[in-house]
Amino acid sequence: MEKNIAVIWGDCASPEIVTQAIRVLDRIGEKFGHTFNYTDVAMGGEAIDKYGDPLPQHELDKCLASDSVLLGAIGGPKWEGMAGDKRPEKGLLRMRAGMGLYSNNRPTKIWPQLAPASPLKAEIVAQGIDFVIVRELTGGVYFGDRQVNILESGEKQAVDLMPYAEYEIERIGRIGFDTAMKRRKKLCCVDKANVLETSRLWREVMHRLQAEYPEVEYSEMFVDNCAMQIVKNPSQFDVIVTENMFGDILSDEASMITGSIGMIPSSSLGQGTCGVYEPIHGSAPDIAGKDVINPTACILSVAMMLRFSFGMSAEADAIEKAVSDVLDQGLRTADNMSEGCTQLGCIAMGDAIVKAL
Amino acid sequence: MEKNIAVIWGDCASPEIVTQAIRVLDRIGEKFGHTFNYTDVAMGGEAIDKYGDPLPQHELDKCLASDSVLLGAIGGPKWEGMAGDKRPEKGLLRMRAGMGLYSNNRPTKIWPQLAPASPLKAEIVAQGIDFVIVRELTGGVYFGDRQVNILESGEKQAVDLMPYAEYEIERIGRIGFDTAMKRRKKLCCVDKANVLETSRLWREVMHRLQAEYPEVEYSEMFVDNCAMQIVKNPSQFDVIVTENMFGDILSDEASMITGSIGMIPSSSLGQGTCGVYEPIHGSAPDIAGKDVINPTACILSVAMMLRFSFGMSAEADAIEKAVSDVLDQGLRTADNMSEGCTQLGCIAMGDAIVKAL
Ligand SMILES: CC(C)[C@H](C(=O)O)[C@@H](O)C(=O)O
Ligand SMILES: CC(C)[C@H](C(=O)O)[C@@H](O)C(=O)O
Repeated sequence: MEKNIAVIWGDCASPEIVTQAIRVLDRIGEKFGHTFNYTDVAMGGEAIDKYGDPLPQHELDKCLASDSVLLGAIGGPKWEGMAGDKRPEKGLLRMRAGMGLYSNNRPTKIWPQLAPASPLKAEIVAQGIDFVIVRELTGGVYFGDRQVNILESGEKQAVDLMPYAEYEIERIGRIGFDTAMKRRKKLCCVDKANVLETSRLWREVMHRLQAEYPEVEYSEMFVDNCAMQIVKNPSQFDVIVTENMFGDILSDEASMITGSIGMIPSSSLGQGTCGVYEPIHGSAPDIAGKDVINPTACILSVAMMLRFSFGMSAEADAIEKAVSDVLDQGLRTADNMSEGCTQLGCIAMGDAIVKAL
Repeated sequence: MEKNIAVIWGDCASPEIVTQAIRVLDRIGEKFGHTFNYTDVAMGGEAIDKYGDPLPQHELDKCLASDSVLLGAIGGPKWEGMAGDKRPEKGLLRMRAGMGLYSNNRPTKIWPQLAPASPLKAEIVAQGIDFVIVRELTGGVYFGDRQVNILESGEKQAVDLMPYAEYEIERIGRIGFDTAMKRRKKLCCVDKANVLETSRLWREVMHRLQAEYPEVEYSEMFVDNCAMQIVKNPSQFDVIVTENMFGDILSDEASMITGSIGMIPSSSLGQGTCGVYEPIHGSAPDIAGKDVINPTACILSVAMMLRFSFGMSAEADAIEKAVSDVLDQGLRTADNMSEGCTQLGCIAMGDAIVKAL
């Protein structure tokens, strides 16, 4: 097969990991007889520097024309404190909206080799941590209107609107159920239905979908309780589906309990098969240019791209197996180094994974 | 001194803990020469059963007329699935609004005797977990308008509004700074200023206040990052100030890392000295009537009431010391029982604490 991939190199230490991810893609191409073509796209800080805009339309157009997008991580101190539309994150939000990427999927899984790195006690980790958070990504308070009103007293009042329409809930709810069907068939919808009208609409729509998926064990949980349960008893979860803001908070909390956020990839998909794949970690300005950053999350993002956008399961399996083999060999980067292991830099870790392929 | 306390006995297992908390209050009265008068108030499930309303005005009026309110916990399976205004939680929300309780304070502290019960690794716990979350309690998406619109397509759209006015931020921000001044002088404002207009107004107001508190080391953190940091490195926090919904989520997560939510009290205060004091845990329907529930969080809520509403620090110290002594004696309830300790029921634990006074 031939696939066209838009590559967002990203800011700070990000190009270092993207470089390794592309080496892995090329190795997969070689091994399985595919051709991957790359088109550079500027987004975030890089695009602000070049175009004064974190995602100009011509760059978004390149993403839309691609078969999928590989993204490192954007932002950094250089662009902090910039006004509204000149913030790197604005590029990310505009890309999600512009590409209609309403479904964000973040696997929360402990690699057995890295289990000691979890901040949770060994007894809890031993019960197994392997769940997926399906986060709605183009709705809710992220994309509702915002206002600043002047009150009678003369002072300001800011208002953020959190809207959800039935179709927005239905399409992400369906992805929640479909994801559960491919896994342990358990789905938990997380909301705040004792307070929010949007959450009550979520439940209404989810109950409708539930009838279509009789095999799935469906449950509901308040977001505050979920924030507790992720720490207390994470083995109870298989798939969590939730709205944009709750997904943002819970998926970061969940990634932390794995103890190795340098290992967690993510996918963002919409109606078609063109998605954005990126590590969940940031651009790591403090270690930029030092060949220290862990390229694995970005490499595993490539595996997700192959699996979800290109239907290349064997290829994705090969990458995941290579990562596991390298961990078995005791090879680590600085972020998850432990006693008795060998510490590698970013390039050497890329080498090791390519070699294991 | 003579004080009038409104007592909300609460639902399910709640009256069992309130009974013990009142025994402790009476013992304090005896020992320090105070008189505490009690007025029963029905709220939540009890009020729905009696009046068909989770907080009728005449019951709220009793709270408003009191010097402070002692609350157990409300709700239970009996009232689940009831429609909007017949939900026990509505009583709680109406009480917060009706009494103007804009400031919720939840200490997140590990009792050294209970450190092994934390789900976090011993190394992390050993660094110290002792912070306070100051949660704004009468604004934001909890009290904004809600709508259900019918879209052109005929389907529903729900909208929740999240408003914050400058004065609402300023008064809670000030409590954040004042709380920090009485502690380790570190304040972290948690928000999502890269997305929300309300968060940007929070920062604007907080920066103004910062100038008045030059001694406080002030920082800002995004809520998703904070959800990670609470698990990864909780010792970094002294005081966190945040809006209503973020405070709900983060304070539940934080309480869980202490490993003993049966030990955590809370205060909710407004302009005056009349506040509501309650354990953070729920009404524990599964163990109702079994003399198993831990009364300590409710007893420590009494200590907070004495300290914050009545200015009785020595009395509050005495209760906290009694709780600590009882833990030192190896006395535990079922929820935090560990090897080598003696397990007590709710009443026996109340006895032990009263005796230690
Ligand atoms: C950068 C920020 C706007 C973004 C979000 O909140 O969605 C990030 O936290 C994420 O989770 O991808
Ligand atoms: C019961 C519910 C409405 C309430 C809240 O969300 O404020 C509870 O979770 C709390 O934290 O006191």
